[in-house]
Amino acid sequence: MRVCIVGCGAIGSLFAAHLARMKEIEVWAYDLDQQHVDAINANGLRLSGVNDLVSHPHATSNAEDIPACDFGIVATKALHTRAAIEATAGVFADGAVCSVQNGAGNEEIIAEYVPRVMRGTTFPAGHIVTPGHVAQDTGGKTWMGPFEPKPASMEEVHRLAEALSCAGMETLAMEDARGAQWTKLIFNAATNPVGALTRLPHGVACDQQRVRALISGLVAEGVAVADALGIELDSDPEKLIDHAREVAYDHKASMLQDVQAGRRTEVAALNGGIVAFGEANQIPTPLNAAIWALIEGLEHSMTLND
Amino acid sequence: MRVCIVGCGAIGSLFAAHLARMKEIEVWAYDLDQQHVDAINANGLRLSGVNDLVSHPHATSNAEDIPACDFGIVATKALHTRAAIEATAGVFADGAVCSVQNGAGNEEIIAEYVPRVMRGTTFPAGHIVTPGHVAQDTGGKTWMGPFEPKPASMEEVHRLAEALSCAGMETLAMEDARGAQWTKLIFNAATNPVGALTRLPHGVACDQQRVRALISGLVAEGVAVADALGIELDSDPEKLIDHAREVAYDHKASMLQDVQAGRRTEVAALNGGIVAFGEANQIPTPLNAAIWALIEGLEHSMTLND
Repeated sequence: MRVCIVGCGAIGSLFAAHLARMKEIEVWAYDLDQQHVDAINANGLRLSGVNDLVSHPHATSNAEDIPACDFGIVATKALHTRAAIEATAGVFADGAVCSVQNGAGNEEIIAEYVPRVMRGTTFPAGHIVTPGHVAQDTGGKTWMGPFEPKPASMEEVHRLAEALSCAGMETLAMEDARGAQWTKLIFNAATNPVGALTRLPHGVACDQQRVRALISGLVAEGVAVADALGIELDSDPEKLIDHAREVAYDHKASMLQDVQAGRRTEVAALNGGIVAFGEANQIPTPLNAAIWALIEGLEHSMTLND
Repeated sequence: MRVCIVGCGAIGSLFAAHLARMKEIEVWAYDLDQQHVDAINANGLRLSGVNDLVSHPHATSNAEDIPACDFGIVATKALHTRAAIEATAGVFADGAVCSVQNGAGNEEIIAEYVPRVMRGTTFPAGHIVTPGHVAQDTGGKTWMGPFEPKPASMEEVHRLAEALSCAGMETLAMEDARGAQWTKLIFNAATNPVGALTRLPHGVACDQQRVRALISGLVAEGVAVADALGIELDSDPEKLIDHAREVAYDHKASMLQDVQAGRRTEVAALNGGIVAFGEANQIPTPLNAAIWALIEGLEHSMTLND
């Protein structure tokens, strides 16, 4: 089996490093960070934290180096999806490609370029420590299933999920993976941008009465859109938010980290995704639209010279 | 005539400096900034910019120094209204007090402490350059009228308005000053916090399609509340917003200046005022509530140690 990880940042590296431990799997890591690529090729890819290992995927920033693959796992930030799959599409001319990205709308883009697509959702998180070294901050499961309009076969879903599970990343193959995806989407869209705009850690934001009410308003819109799509959520996003308050009170949302570092965010795939699917299904999403506008404005302000 | 300016910051100083030019008016300036008070008493109060003058109000940070006054002009930030009028109420035991502050709800607080109240709205703006020296950045009119539940007489409104007009601040006495007040309130509530959250100058914010749509959504809620209150707006807030884009493209909203300086904002009197009057009149204001929550959260984050 040959697998290419498209976008080998913090999340992609978790997949690449685990899979590359398996003798029967040839792993390619495609990433534009040349320092990271060079470090992986020189010394291997190191994980620390929740998992501690070193393995040896092939890394490259040139898609032409990569031979035809059976599977792709797209793990770029949502805003880089199109550029990344456009560059690597040839590798998957007869392959199946799974998004494990945040947000809604990534699979739709991938499906423009490759024959068979899976939707995926992953909970493990990490951050790059130095080129070639990623810290895994949290564990958790991954869910995969066929992307309905242009599906990979369930046989393919099972093969990839089993490979990942064997490699140490527990992955569930599902006929309908939308529930897991939308549960995480709604959670992220309600908490991430609120953290970025208020600059509050998750637990502190939850303890501010008005802020918590806004989070619930964002959740309610997302749940209404999921209902209209006929998606049954895996779990109640409100409970996930309260649970995260218990276990990660001081956690700063990744989108807050993005804006503090002057990076563009995934808001278009999160709140923008809820707004787009809401519009397509006549479900009003004014709060998600407001949040999208504010984050987009904040991103734009980072491009201005003060 | 004896007039006390309650809160002699950037706005209060415009009123104090103009009125103190008039021989027949004794002006007292009450402010807690001792350096500013001392500078005024030592060298007078200087205006520069749109108007250039030096005059000599009596300044104090101790309300007991102030003799009984015919009129009060409250010009503190909205969040200091109660403390300021509580301290100075004795001065106005037989006086009429006018708020020229931003937001909705200030007159209600003042009316708890003094016998006769006016609602006012002022457009001139300025900033403190050094203690005793304020730059007037923009000119413009001031509107005054009786505060309906506990009104000053129209005779009093006319006397104060004429004194200000003679002193060089054009002021209109109106039977119903709510239209001017709510026009400015809706304008400020739609533009100020959006500037603070996105960090964009006014004109740039207007040119971002999604951000402009959010501003319009905030305006529409404010207009609906004003309608429910039977208030006829002076002018269309949308037109004011477009006009400000023309004449003040690079202007950073005062609330953006507040959050960049780590100061608390007037959001509770702006968006919070619209929400409160909306609730009292069964008009939904979800966008103003969302904005209020975000600014309040941002204010709270400024109090945390990072």
